[in-house]
Amino acid sequence: MRLAIAQINSTVGNFEGNLSKIKAAVERAKAQNADLLALPNNALTGCPLDALTADKRFEATSRYYFDQLGSLQFPIAMGHNGHAIIITNSNTEACNSIKLNQEQTMTVVGDSTALPPSTPNTLVIETCSTDYPHFLSQNTPSTGCRTIRVNMVGGNSSHLYPGGSTVYNAIGQPVQQLALFAEDFALIDTHAIATAQPIPTSNKPRIAMLHDALVMGIRDYMAKSGFTQAALGLSGGIDSAVVLALLHNAIGPKNIRVLLMPSQYSSQHSIDDSLAMVRPLGIQHDIVNIAPLFDTARQSLSDIFAGRPENVAEENIQARMRGVLLMALSNKFGHIILNTTNKSEAAVGYGTLYGDTNGAISVLGDVYKNDVYALARYINRNGEIIPQNIIDKAPSAELRPNQKDSDSLPPYDVLDALLYDLIEGGMSSSELKQKYDSATVERIVKLVWRNVYKRAQIPAALWVSAKPLTAKPLPLVNSWLP
Amino acid sequence: MRLAIAQINSTVGNFEGNLSKIKAAVERAKAQNADLLALPNNALTGCPLDALTADKRFEATSRYYFDQLGSLQFPIAMGHNGHAIIITNSNTEACNSIKLNQEQTMTVVGDSTALPPSTPNTLVIETCSTDYPHFLSQNTPSTGCRTIRVNMVGGNSSHLYPGGSTVYNAIGQPVQQLALFAEDFALIDTHAIATAQPIPTSNKPRIAMLHDALVMGIRDYMAKSGFTQAALGLSGGIDSAVVLALLHNAIGPKNIRVLLMPSQYSSQHSIDDSLAMVRPLGIQHDIVNIAPLFDTARQSLSDIFAGRPENVAEENIQARMRGVLLMALSNKFGHIILNTTNKSEAAVGYGTLYGDTNGAISVLGDVYKNDVYALARYINRNGEIIPQNIIDKAPSAELRPNQKDSDSLPPYDVLDALLYDLIEGGMSSSELKQKYDSATVERIVKLVWRNVYKRAQIPAALWVSAKPLTAKPLPLVNSWLP
Repeated sequence: MRLAIAQINSTVGNFEGNLSKIKAAVERAKAQNADLLALPNNALTGCPLDALTADKRFEATSRYYFDQLGSLQFPIAMGHNGHAIIITNSNTEACNSIKLNQEQTMTVVGDSTALPPSTPNTLVIETCSTDYPHFLSQNTPSTGCRTIRVNMVGGNSSHLYPGGSTVYNAIGQPVQQLALFAEDFALIDTHAIATAQPIPTSNKPRIAMLHDALVMGIRDYMAKSGFTQAALGLSGGIDSAVVLALLHNAIGPKNIRVLLMPSQYSSQHSIDDSLAMVRPLGIQHDIVNIAPLFDTARQSLSDIFAGRPENVAEENIQARMRGVLLMALSNKFGHIILNTTNKSEAAVGYGTLYGDTNGAISVLGDVYKNDVYALARYINRNGEIIPQNIIDKAPSAELRPNQKDSDSLPPYDVLDALLYDLIEGGMSSSELKQKYDSATVERIVKLVWRNVYKRAQIPAALWVSAKPLTAKPLPLVNSWLP
Repeated sequence: MRLAIAQINSTVGNFEGNLSKIKAAVERAKAQNADLLALPNNALTGCPLDALTADKRFEATSRYYFDQLGSLQFPIAMGHNGHAIIITNSNTEACNSIKLNQEQTMTVVGDSTALPPSTPNTLVIETCSTDYPHFLSQNTPSTGCRTIRVNMVGGNSSHLYPGGSTVYNAIGQPVQQLALFAEDFALIDTHAIATAQPIPTSNKPRIAMLHDALVMGIRDYMAKSGFTQAALGLSGGIDSAVVLALLHNAIGPKNIRVLLMPSQYSSQHSIDDSLAMVRPLGIQHDIVNIAPLFDTARQSLSDIFAGRPENVAEENIQARMRGVLLMALSNKFGHIILNTTNKSEAAVGYGTLYGDTNGAISVLGDVYKNDVYALARYINRNGEIIPQNIIDKAPSAELRPNQKDSDSLPPYDVLDALLYDLIEGGMSSSELKQKYDSATVERIVKLVWRNVYKRAQIPAALWVSAKPLTAKPLPLVNSWLP
């Protein structure tokens, strides 16, 4: 059989757009004399569907467009509303196991469908919407059959689908893989799978995969939400520099605008390093000193704060003034604001609510600090994009004189390892105390617990781990209207 | 049988505190020669448990404290981890149907347990944790048996449990009801239920119930999160006035602090009306004019905004400056900030993100605007707490000269009715267009959909409807530490 695979990038609820992509794939499959077109799970509706599956209005719309597929008069294998099916010349004939053009039998299974009994001659088509964290940990098929795993690609809010659809022979060896993080199309001779040469699994190194996933996530979040321009505050620190580089890789320099917002506590190197990054990239940037705003706020509060020493209240005013300026830029010109909080900070609540935590999407909210550094080194692999000084200097919020992150937190190597064991590993405090200093464990576990309220107001993060802390996936703005 | 009912207010994960309450109830039951003590569902763990039920560390802690109940050597009927059980002298004998002291049989059922077959002589104990919206719509028992419905009382984050445990005779008539919105204790002679005089259902009018639920929610959120002081911004409008009155009813005037933050666009009546409210109540208040902050921000942005007309960017700067000042107060003195957004605004995104939407808990985020007015009238039922002028004047954000809510939105009577049909009623756009002006329907439905992103960053709301928009319930700060 000649099997066409279309690894498409669907948008949740954008039925017209998704149908257009499917129609184009059908035309291409027909032109290449394919017998069947295989699509990712929920190619028509987009995914994830979450609460939409329970919405009767969504179901009715979905049914209408599903009938359009039948009217294309071309066999399509796909997952739809939890069922893996084959559509022949009309949806009324949908089934999930047929004989087609010399295949003895062919079975289509979905993400969560149990594999039916099959003979070694069965061809299995897995119609998948496996997200990034699960993609990294997925097993090769153990069906004893030739298997075509057709993956969704693209970002939908927090959810990142990496693509990389794969053709496996009957002993689970990959013999062909489609593109990672991009739409792709392939025509497979299913009878040639058994004799095809196995290929190495083509996943890139972990940090390269992470980089590509985040870049795709930014690009798709913007495109699918209707944003063409993006802005962020560049502090001279590692997090905002990495977000800027990822954004630049996603959309290029032209539609980016950056604010540098020093205060009286900012080091000269924060400005110099930031300029050293944006100038070579040709990114539009403005310097707005927040000292006048900070001073006016202290003046406004002087009666109420009389006699009280400066503390975290004054520190947070600075971060929040930066948030006010960025949001004003967004409101005036229509830029989306990217949040620059990382997962280590989000876990312990190190960052100012309504200041540092602002943004429509959190790019690094599911990335530990040490991986932020690894991303920076990866971004610089072919030359310095992020100035080395930004990577080398000690992290600081610069909200008071000579402040360093290490004044409040353990070194990031310790913090990240402990957080990883706590969050990803699910270790209890007593287990953690066997690996780490007791007082540190108690302090960090308490911080993680006490800052749930802060994380609840952080924007949705791009999901790249199995245990995201900040993600609250959202329907996309341009998505289905009830 | 002599049955003691303890309607207690448990805190999620506060095992020591919950166990103390149960021990006290056991002592009281013993002192009154009770044969059995009935407790609300999850009285030991608190509720809701949500993700905690899947946490092995939580389960282990829970098991430890459950064994403590067995060691009290007194029969207890309660719901625990999804099972309704009777603990006799040790947890190993836990069951849900026994004979005890002349009862022919007694069956204990939980919130989600199907009722087992029973004879008319069975005594049914329903151990419940029904939250406020479901409480209002719950049915009387139709078991054909005497039924004791033992309800949880108190607030845990968004979840409000109204109490009001009820004794029903075998034909479903209530014969006794415990307190609403407060802990209570009663001793029932189960053999006297059949001949007891039915009572009227003692639920108060809807708005009185809503008022009491919100007051309990504020009080418990603060107490269980460890806050003694609260603050909010008083604008002179209806929403902040109602939140202040509810807060006052929850904790009294002593620990409240209010900021009045007029701008150049504020009316004199906004200040006068606010002062007319706080002065008689004896609430600490300060006036901080935000004009200097607004002017400094415009000055800071003058290069970037050069040549652009003022628009929503400048409006939002004002709301965000108010947010900065309130959060500074919170950071300096430890006040919890109460959010004053209402459900109608949240639905259509009328309000400034990181400004109006700030706060740890949203008091009115699940209350439509017209119910905010109804609450104001109820609060004033015995005399003017909220100045009549605040109730009478046209709603305005006062972010530009002569602005009115009605410039951007349909009248609240229309808006609320339409939103109610859309959100609570689940009507489609085409159904809505049969009841409302087509253009209005399209505009409002689009606003509701486009502002999902904004609602996602609004703090958790107290849940008082079946279809909350903004609630993201949080574990409480003083809750269980893993």
